[in-house]
Amino acid sequence: MILPVIEFPMDDVLELGAVFCAALSGGLSAIRKSFDIFGVLVLAWATGLGGGILRDVLIGATPPVGISSWRLVVAALAAGVVIYFFHPRLERMRRGIIVLDAGALALFVIVGTTKGLDYGVGLMAAVIVGTLTGIGGGVLRDLLTSEAPLILQDRQLYAVPAIVGASITAVLWREGWLTGWTQLATIALIFGFRLVSLRLGWTVPGPWSGRRGGAGSGRM
Amino acid sequence: MILPVIEFPMDDVLELGAVFCAALSGGLSAIRKSFDIFGVLVLAWATGLGGGILRDVLIGATPPVGISSWRLVVAALAAGVVIYFFHPRLERMRRGIIVLDAGALALFVIVGTTKGLDYGVGLMAAVIVGTLTGIGGGVLRDLLTSEAPLILQDRQLYAVPAIVGASITAVLWREGWLTGWTQLATIALIFGFRLVSLRLGWTVPGPWSGRRGGAGSGRM
Amino acid sequence: MILPVIEFPMDDVLELGAVFCAALSGGLSAIRKSFDIFGVLVLAWATGLGGGILRDVLIGATPPVGISSWRLVVAALAAGVVIYFFHPRLERMRRGIIVLDAGALALFVIVGTTKGLDYGVGLMAAVIVGTLTGIGGGVLRDLLTSEAPLILQDRQLYAVPAIVGASITAVLWREGWLTGWTQLATIALIFGFRLVSLRLGWTVPGPWSGRRGGAGSGRM
Repeated sequence: MILPVIEFPMDDVLELGAVFCAALSGGLSAIRKSFDIFGVLVLAWATGLGGGILRDVLIGATPPVGISSWRLVVAALAAGVVIYFFHPRLERMRRGIIVLDAGALALFVIVGTTKGLDYGVGLMAAVIVGTLTGIGGGVLRDLLTSEAPLILQDRQLYAVPAIVGASITAVLWREGWLTGWTQLATIALIFGFRLVSLRLGWTVPGPWSGRRGGAGSGRM
Repeated sequence: MILPVIEFPMDDVLELGAVFCAALSGGLSAIRKSFDIFGVLVLAWATGLGGGILRDVLIGATPPVGISSWRLVVAALAAGVVIYFFHPRLERMRRGIIVLDAGALALFVIVGTTKGLDYGVGLMAAVIVGTLTGIGGGVLRDLLTSEAPLILQDRQLYAVPAIVGASITAVLWREGWLTGWTQLATIALIFGFRLVSLRLGWTVPGPWSGRRGGAGSGRM
Repeated sequence: MILPVIEFPMDDVLELGAVFCAALSGGLSAIRKSFDIFGVLVLAWATGLGGGILRDVLIGATPPVGISSWRLVVAALAAGVVIYFFHPRLERMRRGIIVLDAGALALFVIVGTTKGLDYGVGLMAAVIVGTLTGIGGGVLRDLLTSEAPLILQDRQLYAVPAIVGASITAVLWREGWLTGWTQLATIALIFGFRLVSLRLGWTVPGPWSGRRGGAGSGRM
């Protein structure tokens, strides 16, 4: 039995808040690179909404909500404005922002996976686009500031909770158990998993310590 | 009353010229990075047509004209060839190229915004894709040469005229006033705005001078 | 007379093998950058399947096979796992991997061009997306490791065989001669062209030796 996908009855405030929180990290990166105010706004927009834009392009949901939803765009740009004027204060609130960012990650993954399933892309593709919804903004942020994506190298459990949460969502959907409540539980799980991993310093394995190949920046 | 979008009766020469001019800047970047001839051609193509490709992907207009229009592709590649052989001379014509580039920006923004409106993406999305049509090529050029996008940090008024022009186009369309003539006037406005800002040294605010957060290249 | 596009009767093993080989190079790049295991897997996925994802987005074939095909995704991730554990040994097999990579290039180009033609994007667009299918993964790999794409600067004949092969495929299709056999012959041609160019040290022209413009990393 396949239930229709039930959208998470998300308070708008919640979704806008998630975009705002994710966008803060983009604005801060721009500040650290001494970007001008336009750069700060673009980075906030790209970081807050880039994951969803990537998702929408991949599942064929054009135009992406990241360019067509007034409220989402305003939420991201508002984060840019706040960062531009108050970043010294926000740098000091680092820990608080990390917690908010974990919440945004959790929400993005569930919303993204559900939207993928809704568009009929299949279970695995939905898990991938759900994960990309959560982590894509940060990757785009790093590319636009000419850094290799932090998420690929910092060994933190950031993508892992995302993949786990997206997979659970896909399984719940396949079994017909995807409701607002199970979505909410999955959000809480991702959020908690991320925070616990930070608290306890869990990491994924770093570079494997075989004899390193050394030289060679060549193609192959 | 909503008039159908009237396409700007653009001389083909004009559009091809705009792509050619924009592509020059990509070829020059490739030369400065000591790319080979293939790299010069790719950079010319990506810079001249990348903004439009991005726009077409976002509004669902696949395949993008940047890969399907013979004339546009040839115009971009021709700029690459010219740059490859004559770049020392062109480096000295810097001022002239900046003027041509401003013209290309103006044209791209109007064409891009109008196409977005034509595809029914809504006013704000059309303004965003119009702006991206104008600035996207330069961003792609910088990413492909492993630089943080200049437009995010150089404080010049490059994106601002684009956003203003795209917004005017969207308003004209909503009011049913978008004709070849009003489009032409908007192009002239963007072009003039950009040149005047260059001439008078107008800038957007740079990094805000609060106490800088200093350290921390971390995620958040 | 236009024949329907006949798909190359490709052994699944062949296609999965091509993805696996291409993905190896992504995993190796990640290792050299000291990415963690998640980074190695993402780089393997992006390098093995990124060209095809780019192609599918450009021709409107969403969701791209690079996120929806179990077998392809598993093949790419398997390469990442192999690289993670055995990269010192694989670094020493460099020459063998280059040969395998040439085979993957050849296959990708034919599959990509044919899919473009199948989607009715026109001859030139099909040649472009076919070429991008072959080279796009490597470009994405370099961007994700914060390098300027090697293919734009190393003067090797990598893109040239791809473009030649894609063009031949397009012409064969237009003439109604595209069959499994002519596709196979074109694959052999690209593969041989690439290997011969490596063996004989053929290169494309590097930076043109006019007086170099020197300074100026400015916009234009």
